Amino acid sequence: MIEIIKVNTRGQGLYEFTTELQHLVSRSGLSEGLCSLLIQHTSASMTIQENADPSAQYDLERWLNRLVVEGDPLYTHTLEGADDMPAHIKAALTSTTLSIPVIDGRLALGTWQGVFCWEHRHAKQQRRIVCHLGG
Amino acid sequence: MIEIIKVNTRGQGLYEFTTELQHLVSRSGLSEGLCSLLIQHTSASMTIQENADPSAQYDLERWLNRLVVEGDPLYTHTLEGADDMPAHIKAALTSTTLSIPVIDGRLALGTWQGVFCWEHRHAKQQRRIVCHLGG
Amino acid sequence: MIEIIKVNTRGQGLYEFTTELQHLVSRSGLSEGLCSLLIQHTSASMTIQENADPSAQYDLERWLNRLVVEGDPLYTHTLEGADDMPAHIKAALTSTTLSIPVIDGRLALGTWQGVFCWEHRHAKQQRRIVCHLGG
Repeated sequence: MIEIIKVNTRGQGLYEFTTELQHLVSRSGLSEGLCSLLIQHTSASMTIQENADPSAQYDLERWLNRLVVEGDPLYTHTLEGADDMPAHIKAALTSTTLSIPVIDGRLALGTWQGVFCWEHRHAKQQRRIVCHLGG
Repeated sequence: MIEIIKVNTRGQGLYEFTTELQHLVSRSGLSEGLCSLLIQHTSASMTIQENADPSAQYDLERWLNRLVVEGDPLYTHTLEGADDMPAHIKAALTSTTLSIPVIDGRLALGTWQGVFCWEHRHAKQQRRIVCHLGG
Repeated sequence: MIEIIKVNTRGQGLYEFTTELQHLVSRSGLSEGLCSLLIQHTSASMTIQENADPSAQYDLERWLNRLVVEGDPLYTHTLEGADDMPAHIKAALTSTTLSIPVIDGRLALGTWQGVFCWEHRHAKQQRRIVCHLGG
């Protein structure tokens, strides 16, 4: 089964979609299997990270923004805005695809793990994540 | 089939579990398919790396420690120890999930490739890796 | 079904193989499923990136070369050449495995996404990518 999850973003940062993804798994009736994700963008990515304390997500965002700066004189790919080339680099350093086992109808995540869309651009976006569920 | 591999770590560094993973594949009787892994933690991760020369693993560890330092004044997420926020960042930059094809009952790794748990914390830990085997 | 895609590289940079991968999917007759990839090397990796404007690929390469320099006095793993240890680090920071859903016989990539082999060494190489197609 394949479905699309849409995540509406409002600027840079981490947007959790674990609950929506679990709903999709539950609706599918899959008991044991694999949930594979692809985000269909090159200026946003995904990560599985701590979802308990928002300060961890805040620091992740700020650390990555310091590593991959806007306005770097190295960039030649600048026509799509100052946040575009940094977004591609951040996407390359994080995850475009993920594969999460499913046990007893539940995503087999650890206690503190959530699944996030990582938005790297400033403007509002709607991000599409393709979810494949298999046995 | 889904099983859990447990990796006992004794401080930061790379811990290979290729042999244990191959045993799991062999026991399953799977001839051709896909072995998908999820590490259920946000302060440890995984990597597929050279397993021949330990100096490559040593340098990987030291390079990443220099890139993601402890005590960075940027961090606000500091309650769980000086090595906690760097561990989350390192996990985000490396792999939380991996998918390895299986051919003729063997993990289809390259000649020099091993599968490693990458521990980012100093204290001893037991890390859980969920392994899904599918056709 | 499992097949090997071979990518001939001529020095550092991104080498797209989306077309070859789509041909493999088409030949397989798979309508809906998952295409999982493993590159069998530790000094080359993969990425899903923008394939419209070559300047994005050019900047990705130059940015990563500036982050992970050759001749870093930190390295102890130096016997295989000045570009070897940086290649391992770059591989660890990008992707060794990827999983791409297939819909209606097509890789479910976004409009601007291509699949690339990322060569991190200077000499010519032939890189092997194992492709697993499953339901």
